[in-house]
Amino acid sequence: EQRIRTETAQVDKGGHRHFMAKEIAEQPARLTDLLGAYMGKDGVELPAPGIDFAAIERLTMVACGTAFYACLTAKYWFEQIAGLPVEVDVASEFRYREPPIGAGTAALFVSQSGETADTLAALRYCRGKADRILSVVNVAESSIARESDLALPIHAGPEIGVASTKAFSCQLTVLLLLALDAARARGRLDDAAFAARLDELRTLPGLMNQALGIDDAAHAISARLAEARDILFLGRGRMYPLAHEGALKLKEISYIHAEAYASGELKHGPIALIDKSVPVIVMAPRDELFDKSVSNMQEVMARGGKVVLITDAAGADEAGDGVWQVLRLPACPPALAPILYAVPAQLLAYHTALAKGTDVDQPRNLAKSVTVE
Amino acid sequence: EQRIRTETAQVDKGGHRHFMAKEIAEQPARLTDLLGAYMGKDGVELPAPGIDFAAIERLTMVACGTAFYACLTAKYWFEQIAGLPVEVDVASEFRYREPPIGAGTAALFVSQSGETADTLAALRYCRGKADRILSVVNVAESSIARESDLALPIHAGPEIGVASTKAFSCQLTVLLLLALDAARARGRLDDAAFAARLDELRTLPGLMNQALGIDDAAHAISARLAEARDILFLGRGRMYPLAHEGALKLKEISYIHAEAYASGELKHGPIALIDKSVPVIVMAPRDELFDKSVSNMQEVMARGGKVVLITDAAGADEAGDGVWQVLRLPACPPALAPILYAVPAQLLAYHTALAKGTDVDQPRNLAKSVTVE
Repeated sequence: EQRIRTETAQVDKGGHRHFMAKEIAEQPARLTDLLGAYMGKDGVELPAPGIDFAAIERLTMVACGTAFYACLTAKYWFEQIAGLPVEVDVASEFRYREPPIGAGTAALFVSQSGETADTLAALRYCRGKADRILSVVNVAESSIARESDLALPIHAGPEIGVASTKAFSCQLTVLLLLALDAARARGRLDDAAFAARLDELRTLPGLMNQALGIDDAAHAISARLAEARDILFLGRGRMYPLAHEGALKLKEISYIHAEAYASGELKHGPIALIDKSVPVIVMAPRDELFDKSVSNMQEVMARGGKVVLITDAAGADEAGDGVWQVLRLPACPPALAPILYAVPAQLLAYHTALAKGTDVDQPRNLAKSVTVE
Repeated sequence: EQRIRTETAQVDKGGHRHFMAKEIAEQPARLTDLLGAYMGKDGVELPAPGIDFAAIERLTMVACGTAFYACLTAKYWFEQIAGLPVEVDVASEFRYREPPIGAGTAALFVSQSGETADTLAALRYCRGKADRILSVVNVAESSIARESDLALPIHAGPEIGVASTKAFSCQLTVLLLLALDAARARGRLDDAAFAARLDELRTLPGLMNQALGIDDAAHAISARLAEARDILFLGRGRMYPLAHEGALKLKEISYIHAEAYASGELKHGPIALIDKSVPVIVMAPRDELFDKSVSNMQEVMARGGKVVLITDAAGADEAGDGVWQVLRLPACPPALAPILYAVPAQLLAYHTALAKGTDVDQPRNLAKSVTVE
């Protein structure tokens, strides 16, 4: 509380109407800082003492809220790129379930403030059980950072808006760097493939900058979303956690009841909700799961649902016909899509909240950092 | 499809207005059958060839919809009672992520029909990777049962209502029996403790029968719930997955946008939704996490939220003051609560749907068994 008030006094809005708008807009710059801090000429450079992912058999990741969705995304990267099994849990459940932690397990905790009460308690539960305790935090001198064997800073700078934006994209980027480091250590990427992945990552700030160009389009769509009382977000694969983050952003600042589903779960219940009053936002770059996502999207449209398709030019050409609204993002390497698509998730929530007239930076009932249970 | 139509012709509603009402009401009888089939004088008797849980290091459980929530509940039982780490995933995500499956892993698939397309594909992905393939199914001659090393029938009889009820409580009970068997095999329960757990389980049909006595009270509350457009369900620990099942039931047949959250996640975003138009249903028996649940419930009430507290007499005495509605269930052993509390979840959805005049047994947009992606 004290620290946040101090930061609020020291940080201005840089010409933006809200801290949230400023923090969305500065993501390319913060990601440039972050990549500069982590990428050396020999690859991913972690703070000492580092971690040898070849010596680890599995990873348990624990967090709350937005940071939990960053972990959920990272599970896809670690499992698919590094072949490292990952379990993810929300901190308030993890700590009281007291799950068995086997030998060979590293535990990783993600928290913007580094003071999230449930996450800190989960970390303390793992002390003495997990082989290594890692954390990904924004506040380097926080309790979670201090109690970790290895604390990885996200270099996001002070985040004042209660709804997390730049901290999320920076958390994701640190986690992707870790997954690439793990893949190399575990022999899943050779030198050339690893270098190519790092080259991809270097394009991220530029891609984020291009993505910010959808601001006007997001603004126009948000005027319509603001009329809705309920909204669904759908995603598949590495885009599924991002559907959760999109729904959470919208809930937090617009008070619209947005909920996320894995696209493939739609038929197992939630499709009963679909009618023309419930917009459905589909996050679907033209990737290897695109056809499956389009098929789920068409089921929604066949039942009168209004779809907002967030995709790239190829996706819009292929599946944009008959869709209510299309939001076009730059094409990007598949692994980067969950970071890039955070931008439309943030901008839709921001403009929808503006249209509704809510207090964007200080939404009702919420605190920036949850230091009690 | 063909099989279901045949069953519909052969099974009548037994004097009930809907198949769903009949299937809710027959749960004590079906659970009696189930326990009779699995409990012998020497403990839990599994069909041949059985499984040695002492030889297993971890369990991966995969399913869709209601069956997924049964798996999520079972994770708590296996980890807490048997000390066996469990990972749970929805089938449509699991199959395309192609997760690493380490040695010592058993894979378990849950499906009422045994024909769920994504679940079957997930099973086939695990073939040759997992040490053993188990399934929990209602249709013994189904594809999933046939392709398993060990198929465990749930003895629920034909389920005609599209919204699953008795299949859920029977899936849970088979999974609890398995968790107890695992706990004994792994030396986590001695003979006396194991026998005591089985004695507890024998009380389940009677408890379910008592729980059905809340029908009138659930009917009265549902008249009010039917006025809501959005509802939240909260639970902690082993009651958290049941909050998901309660929300799913309500979505499926009343078309009200109900969503579940782990109680501890409320402060990380969704509490922004709370006002007097959004009832919050809290599933909280007087267990070891009750005080935490009550604290989260009071945060909701402090923000004008209307709480429906589903608890036992001790819980109602302790925390019922100022709550909008209280639904009282019989006190029960903590491990049985997720099965017992399925009854109010089902009855609230049923009566709310009746009040809204929807087609309870054939809700819009939904099929009984999802045999396509």
